Amino acid sequence: MSSTEKPYRIACIPGDGIGVDITDAAIQVLNKLAEVAGNFKFDFVHFDWSSKNFKERGWYMPEDGMEQLKKHDAIYFGAVGWPDVPDHISLWGLILPIRKSMNQYVNVRPTRILRGTEAPLKKCGPKDLDWVIVRENSEGEYAGQGGTTHDHTAYAVATEVAIFTAVGIDRIMRFAFETARSRPCKKLTMVTKSNAQRHGMVLWDKIFHQVAKDYPDVEWDKMLVDAMTVRMVLHPQTLDTIVATNLHADILSDLAAALSGSIGIAPSSNLDPTRGCPSMFEPIHGSAPDIAGKGIANPVGAFWSAAEMVRWVGKGELEEAADALMLAIENVTEAGIRTKDLGGDKNTKEVTEAVCKEIEKVL
Amino acid sequence: MSSTEKPYRIACIPGDGIGVDITDAAIQVLNKLAEVAGNFKFDFVHFDWSSKNFKERGWYMPEDGMEQLKKHDAIYFGAVGWPDVPDHISLWGLILPIRKSMNQYVNVRPTRILRGTEAPLKKCGPKDLDWVIVRENSEGEYAGQGGTTHDHTAYAVATEVAIFTAVGIDRIMRFAFETARSRPCKKLTMVTKSNAQRHGMVLWDKIFHQVAKDYPDVEWDKMLVDAMTVRMVLHPQTLDTIVATNLHADILSDLAAALSGSIGIAPSSNLDPTRGCPSMFEPIHGSAPDIAGKGIANPVGAFWSAAEMVRWVGKGELEEAADALMLAIENVTEAGIRTKDLGGDKNTKEVTEAVCKEIEKVL
Ligand SMILES: CC(C)[C@H](C(=O)O)[C@@H](O)C(=O)O
Ligand SMILES: CC(C)[C@H](C(=O)O)[C@@H](O)C(=O)O
Repeated sequence: MSSTEKPYRIACIPGDGIGVDITDAAIQVLNKLAEVAGNFKFDFVHFDWSSKNFKERGWYMPEDGMEQLKKHDAIYFGAVGWPDVPDHISLWGLILPIRKSMNQYVNVRPTRILRGTEAPLKKCGPKDLDWVIVRENSEGEYAGQGGTTHDHTAYAVATEVAIFTAVGIDRIMRFAFETARSRPCKKLTMVTKSNAQRHGMVLWDKIFHQVAKDYPDVEWDKMLVDAMTVRMVLHPQTLDTIVATNLHADILSDLAAALSGSIGIAPSSNLDPTRGCPSMFEPIHGSAPDIAGKGIANPVGAFWSAAEMVRWVGKGELEEAADALMLAIENVTEAGIRTKDLGGDKNTKEVTEAVCKEIEKVL
Repeated sequence: MSSTEKPYRIACIPGDGIGVDITDAAIQVLNKLAEVAGNFKFDFVHFDWSSKNFKERGWYMPEDGMEQLKKHDAIYFGAVGWPDVPDHISLWGLILPIRKSMNQYVNVRPTRILRGTEAPLKKCGPKDLDWVIVRENSEGEYAGQGGTTHDHTAYAVATEVAIFTAVGIDRIMRFAFETARSRPCKKLTMVTKSNAQRHGMVLWDKIFHQVAKDYPDVEWDKMLVDAMTVRMVLHPQTLDTIVATNLHADILSDLAAALSGSIGIAPSSNLDPTRGCPSMFEPIHGSAPDIAGKGIANPVGAFWSAAEMVRWVGKGELEEAADALMLAIENVTEAGIRTKDLGGDKNTKEVTEAVCKEIEKVL
């Protein structure tokens, strides 16, 4: 579209802590990208849904919150969680209901070692670690069911009910196979814990095998989630696309981020592949109360998430801009303009300005 | 006890694959230890409960299996699992029921970098990684409950029900605090995922805080399981004793083993702290079908588990022998007599003989 056309409407939810800093930074970078590209625009609409406001108002999202979000082309999310609100209240008040209500049943988490950054493993150069983790994002261990009986007694019992559906498993497996198929080496590793979890995980296994038949060109293997961590550490180069349950992929994607150097660079796309609802883009990291408000948060994960958002809303037409943003990010990390978690001494503003300048050069 | 006294009766279940190789090796080493020490003895009783026999007989354990095990002072376990039996059948046929029926509600998994071995992290020397993971071993995600509805349809639904009880949580927390208290730095990290799993994990959190009050001398902190993997990779030296649920600790302990160099060195003690039932000792690794029968499995995890068994049955009286076994193991790894997973070229027999020889020197 040309700049005179309707802009992409982005719902911004900065949330808590460094979520605010990095959302500001991402908006600055996205505006710069649109300005330099010249053929698209963003209209950012802010939502002040945060833990601070929750304490004052008693709610994270208003009653019609989901309806409001639905009017947008995408959602950009910072982080939620603050020490004075129990985490299960804040997360079930904001991020988890959005993922569920917006039909974002896929969460995509790419990981690689960015140019100029150093990974913590001895035997792992940039070419040895280039993964995409596809996380089931709508059910499983995050179904939210369960409860407590005999509360406040010495014999209290609490349950967590993980729910796996054939529909839910089938669609995430298809997305994972499509993702694997789109990558050079066409390789998918399916993660499970079906040896110990013999109901839901066995269904997971079964449907995986059914779906695999439709993708004869994709090479696949299976791993137990515990052994998978060993493989990620000791044989990173044997992995490419990975699919796992909501909880397993939550854990493995944090591990992946650490192995690539820092949780501060990792992006996350919560997708509704049917495009019936807006998808949501957020860095993997949390609100980091310890460094909040200091202006030192690493904005790279936020920028990478922004690049993925550009790709998504562009439906194939903004690839050039998204690629330019990724190139700009890596030119900056390579030039040594990095925050502390990446071994540098720059702050959020310095990295953001460097990326903006670099966008002017590369686009 | 003197060698004329009643020997320790050990039930041996070699199981499948390399479980057989390493159990043989462990028995050899334990017999050597007893012989050199001179003041105790073992009576090993073999149980042929394996996947091979399951296929012939239709059962892993006979009806009175648990009664038979109860007659022993401890159980030494190799590994279970073989490609032609679904894992959830083999594991629920043998290892998981033993852990549950023998009241082994604690699983202790120490990890450190053994002398002479190399860890995969750049910034992690032997002093930076010395952890004990205390795993809840009787309930949680391994409660075994759940099921499937609408099986074989496109709308099948399966559940996994994790069950947490106040009794189960209280006792594992007390064990973890006692473990932390017994170590030089008296530090406990409690792992949870109470932000997303808001029923069972919230009870876990609550009871942790109650128990913590009884251990004012132990310093503690809390981590979410995903963020915990990041800390283990990037800040290993900040951790000491760790307590986590059955599944979380399963994953974290494999990661810990990988970060210490190899899953082949990691031990695991399934304890009934009340001593009403025999405790069970097993290396963390599985049956490794790919290298089974080749005589090349790393027996170090099996030896370390054996050392822990010696400590346990000795109730404080065999510390010298257990320490000697650990010293022998590390002298051997340091001397470069190591299997392939540790960068060496020796086989199981060579490592076993070297450890036996070393026991003669150090005890
Ligand atoms: C904040 C939390 C609920 C979330 C999750 O567990 O999904 C986070 O860890 C993530 O990975 O996005
Ligand atoms: C074999 C399997 C059931 C077992 C577990 O998950 O507990 C293993 O991975 C372990 O860690 O001992």
